[in-house]
Order: sequence, then C-alpha cells, then structure tokens
Amino acid sequence: MCALKVTAFFVLLFLVGTVRADPGEAQPRAVLVLHGGAGTISRKKLTPELEKKYRDDLEAALRAGYDALQRKSGTSTDAVEAAIKVLEDSPLFNAGKGAVFTHDGRNELDASLMEGKTKKAGAVAGITRIKNPISAARAVMEQSEHVLLAGEGADRFAISKGLKEVSPVYFWTDERWRQLQKALRDEEEGRDKKKQSKMEDPERYFGTVGAVAVDRDGNLAAGTSTGGMTNKRFGRVGDSPIIGAGTYADNETCAVSGTGHGEIFIRHAVAHDVVARMKYKKLSVAEAAREVMAGLPEERGGVGGLIALNAKGRFAMEFNTEGMYRGYVTADGKTFVEIFSPK
Amino acid sequence: MCALKVTAFFVLLFLVGTVRADPGEAQPRAVLVLHGGAGTISRKKLTPELEKKYRDDLEAALRAGYDALQRKSGTSTDAVEAAIKVLEDSPLFNAGKGAVFTHDGRNELDASLMEGKTKKAGAVAGITRIKNPISAARAVMEQSEHVLLAGEGADRFAISKGLKEVSPVYFWTDERWRQLQKALRDEEEGRDKKKQSKMEDPERYFGTVGAVAVDRDGNLAAGTSTGGMTNKRFGRVGDSPIIGAGTYADNETCAVSGTGHGEIFIRHAVAHDVVARMKYKKLSVAEAAREVMAGLPEERGGVGGLIALNAKGRFAMEFNTEGMYRGYVTADGKTFVEIFSPK
Repeated sequence: MCALKVTAFFVLLFLVGTVRADPGEAQPRAVLVLHGGAGTISRKKLTPELEKKYRDDLEAALRAGYDALQRKSGTSTDAVEAAIKVLEDSPLFNAGKGAVFTHDGRNELDASLMEGKTKKAGAVAGITRIKNPISAARAVMEQSEHVLLAGEGADRFAISKGLKEVSPVYFWTDERWRQLQKALRDEEEGRDKKKQSKMEDPERYFGTVGAVAVDRDGNLAAGTSTGGMTNKRFGRVGDSPIIGAGTYADNETCAVSGTGHGEIFIRHAVAHDVVARMKYKKLSVAEAAREVMAGLPEERGGVGGLIALNAKGRFAMEFNTEGMYRGYVTADGKTFVEIFSPK
Repeated sequence: MCALKVTAFFVLLFLVGTVRADPGEAQPRAVLVLHGGAGTISRKKLTPELEKKYRDDLEAALRAGYDALQRKSGTSTDAVEAAIKVLEDSPLFNAGKGAVFTHDGRNELDASLMEGKTKKAGAVAGITRIKNPISAARAVMEQSEHVLLAGEGADRFAISKGLKEVSPVYFWTDERWRQLQKALRDEEEGRDKKKQSKMEDPERYFGTVGAVAVDRDGNLAAGTSTGGMTNKRFGRVGDSPIIGAGTYADNETCAVSGTGHGEIFIRHAVAHDVVARMKYKKLSVAEAAREVMAGLPEERGGVGGLIALNAKGRFAMEFNTEGMYRGYVTADGKTFVEIFSPK
C-alpha cells in the first residue's frame, strides 16, 4: 500500500512535469520565428498603409527564411541569415538600411549569429560599410577563429572575405535623420532630462531585428541585427552583438534573439538566461521566456521582447511593450504576422 | 509507518542537498580572490627570481584590495578596482602595462566591472590611451547610461571623465614585443599551422587578470582586464569585456572572473553559467565552477580558468591548465598566493 502511494506520488510528479514542460499543445509548431523590434507601437500612428508595409516586409522575411529551409541541405543558419537580410534591406527596421544615426551622424551596425549544434558564434560591432551585417557575423563565425570583431577591423575582415561593400550613405534614410535631429534638439533643450532617465525612452532602442530557426536535422540557429540606439556616442555597443545577451542558441534547449533596452539585456544576460532556465530548471521554452522577461526591472527601463524556439518547433514571442513586430512560419509554409499586443 | 518512510526520504534528500551545497567547511573564507591568468606555466621556465616577482605583485594586489575594503565605506567595487590596478601596472601580466601586441603592433585593452547588488556593469573594448582600463570600465558603469563602449569612443569617454591618459607607448614592454615578433615569424613560416588549430595554443590567451570581492555589506563585485591575444587583428574582442562571458556578479549567487581562451568563454557564457548553475541547480560555488570548467570542450581549445566568490566568502579557483596565478585574502588580512596546479 505504501509502495503504491509512493509510486503514485512520483507518477503524479512526472505528469505535472510533463504538462509543465509542454503547455502549448494547441500552439502550432514553427520552423522559423522572427521579430522586427518591440516598442510603443501606437495604433493611431501606424496608418493602414504603413502597417501594410511592415506586414509585407515581415511576410517576405518569413518567406525567405522558409525558402532557405526548403533548399537541399538548407540549414537553420541559412534560414536565419536569409530572413534577417530581408529586414536589413527594408528601410522600415533599425538594421542595415534604415538604421538609426549615432550622435555624430553615422550609421554603426551590430549583428550576431549562433549555431545551436556546435555553439559556434560570430558577431560584428560598429561596422559601417557592409550591406548585410548578419552576413558579416556569419563570416566571422565560419571564416575566422574569433567570435567578435569590432569597428574598422570588422569592416576590413568582411571585405577581405568578399562581402558586399556599400558606401556608408547607403544606410541613410530621411526618417532616421529626422529622429536624430529631434534627439539632438531635445538634448540641447534639456527635454530628455524630463524623463526620469533617458533609459526609459523605448523609442531610442527601437527596431532591432532577429530570427530563430530549426532545420530538418533539428539544428537550431539564432541571429540578431541592429543599428543600435539613436544619438548613441562613444562607440556604445548594445546587446545585439553580444552572445549570451542579445543572441544565444543551444540545441539542447532553444535559440533566442532579443530586442529592447540593450544595457539591461546585457546586465541580465537575457538570451543565455532563457537557455539556463530551460536547462537547469527544466522549464518549457514559453515558461523560460516569460520568467526572464518578467524578471527585468521595468521601472529602470527593462523594456523589450524576445523570441525563442526549441528543436521541436515550440516557441515564445514575449514582450512587455505595446507591440512587437513579429511572425512565424510553420513546417507546411503557413505564415503568421502580428504587431500589437493581444492583451 | 509509510508516512515515516516518506518523511525519512525527504529528510535524507534535504541532508544530501545541504551537504552538497556547502562542501568546503574546512576552506577559509575570503574577502577578495584574484587571478593573473592561466596557462602552461612551466616550473622550469619560471626561475626562482621571476616566481618571486609574480608572487610579490600578486601579494601587492591582494593587499591593495584588502586595504580598500578596510577603508570607511570601502566597497567590493573599490577593492576589485584597487587589486586590478596593481596587476595592470605590473609589466608581468597581460593587462595595462605589459599587455600583448596586436598584429599591427598596438596595445588594445579590454576591461569590465560588475556589481552584484544592482547588476550594474561597465566595460571598455579596444582602448589604447587610458592607464588603467579597469577604471575606465568603472567610469562607464557609474558615469554613463551604457554598459559597453568600444574603440576610440571609449578612450574619449574615459578622458572626458578625467581618467589618467598615457601615450600608447606606455604599454610597450620588450618581452611582449618579442612575443609578437615570434608569432609573426611563426605565421609567415606556416609554423602555427602545425598546431591543429591556433586555438589550441594557450600562450596566445595568457595573462588576463581579474578579481572578485565581497564587502562588509555582503555586496559582491567582479572585474577583469586584459590585453587580449598576441597578434590579434581585425578588432578582435575576447571575453574579458563581455558581461556574462568574462565577468558577472549577482549578490544572490556569486561574482566571477574568467581567464583563458576568450572565444570559447563567450560561446559558453562562462561567467553567467556559473551563476545560473548556482541559482537554478542550487549548486555550491565550488561545484558550479567545477561543472562549468569541466563542460568546456578542451580538445577544441577550451583552456583557462576562473575565480568565483559568494557573499559568505566561499570561493573557487578552478583551471584546466598547468597553472594559474592566483591568490586570496581572508577577512583578518591573511594572504595566500599560488601558481602551479596542486595536482
């Protein structure tokens, strides 16, 4: 009788564990998930025309990622790179073309990429002349003995590997230039001081893009690309090129890409923390993503979001802002795009 | 009877947990632990005279850290900065004066600092004109809204905050210049190819310094400083300025500083992984440090070591190389310095 009770107790524990580990039976499974930044996306400001443009570009990125996975020997790394390139080439997102301006009126771009099987990773910070920073990150991962290259050296490395070089003017857009001018005026007039801290303005960290994917071999990959924050100076580097902060991938657990207030994401090692909670606390991908976002100090500017995907196609798209440009594609090629919070 | 058995089972579980969580009752408690790099330190090459120099400088660093803690309102951050400054000023270690040379014959310095109470952090990468990079990292943490500044911008920021500027020539030492010339000759003659991978040469990653401390308020801090790897190029950044890789601090768990093959340390988020295993797996600081080092892929160059310290003064000095320059100081001011592996 006692043995029976004890057995029943452990069976119950096991069942609870199983249910907790896989709560989203109703959720479709994805092969690729992406984001185009989280922030105060107001339904008023986003006209139907502009919303359509965003949706079209997110859709095109999902399609590019999906197509890469369909190709013979197409890997999750190929898919992540392909999807992010579409978002980098779009002027709507703060990555590649359309990146925000630094204080000095330049576009300095960061990106990173990581493979879940080998834990190989590559990243670039502060590059100014490579059309697709995510491809530069991939070149670092595959064609160097390093993980992170910064500044002019990173540009030179990417060019030496044959990556497409552009004039820095290529990244210029009217919209971002206006944002810099406004930030400079606000700064001069002390208006930015009215906010308790500049940290609290999510718009400054807005529009980073990222993707996570799983391929037919069950291998995960994650990538992130950004122009950083408007009016940044002194060679500021955010979380996007930091493995463990903005990007992480581990086949055992999940692939993660974050977007938001980079400094907070670095200090909380956000991407690695999602992986660690799955690995050591045995949480599901959804639970781990939720816990990590809930643990960020919102009052001190811990705003943003993240996407995470495991090898079985279970995923999370978690954010604490009004909206996050996001989408996913299933194994049979169905795409889903969302912008606002469902709440 | 059954209830008794079940209770006994859980009491046993609890006891096992307790014993596992605190195995080092015999170990003295430290207020500051430091390292001066891990690598192939051969007893033959290290003459008694040179060994004495290393021991004297490690001792002086421990003393400086301890003195900082004794001062009225002396914090763990003060102690970490003070200890690391001594090692940066010593020409023996690959940090500050005595840093290794890049491929282009420059000294590019990286450092980071983190506080366990607030999880505030600061870091600099690729600076060339600040005498004490660890102080530049502290200035970023305390006087900017950022975590990581890179390149010329980081130098400009530190100078604008009044930090001591030196000519880049200050960092030059004969010994490091000879090491670069040898690396360049080896490269030209293809000798470096004989090693299965350049990654496997621990000497190239040798001599990073770091410290972790706890103050009277139980607040932890961690810091790391390095010149990177000999013959580095393309703006390569290693793990030392990366929060989560080379440095992490969290009052709940421990403060960590790593040294070794930076790329592997980034890919495995080494510093944050020690913290995560303590937090989520409930390991002791010694167990977590051991597990993380054991998990690094040694055959692919995962060589190095780390120090970790919790708020109760329990600590680990773990490495998988022949030696690691290391030491600690106890609350009553006793210092201990070690170089070789006890094995």
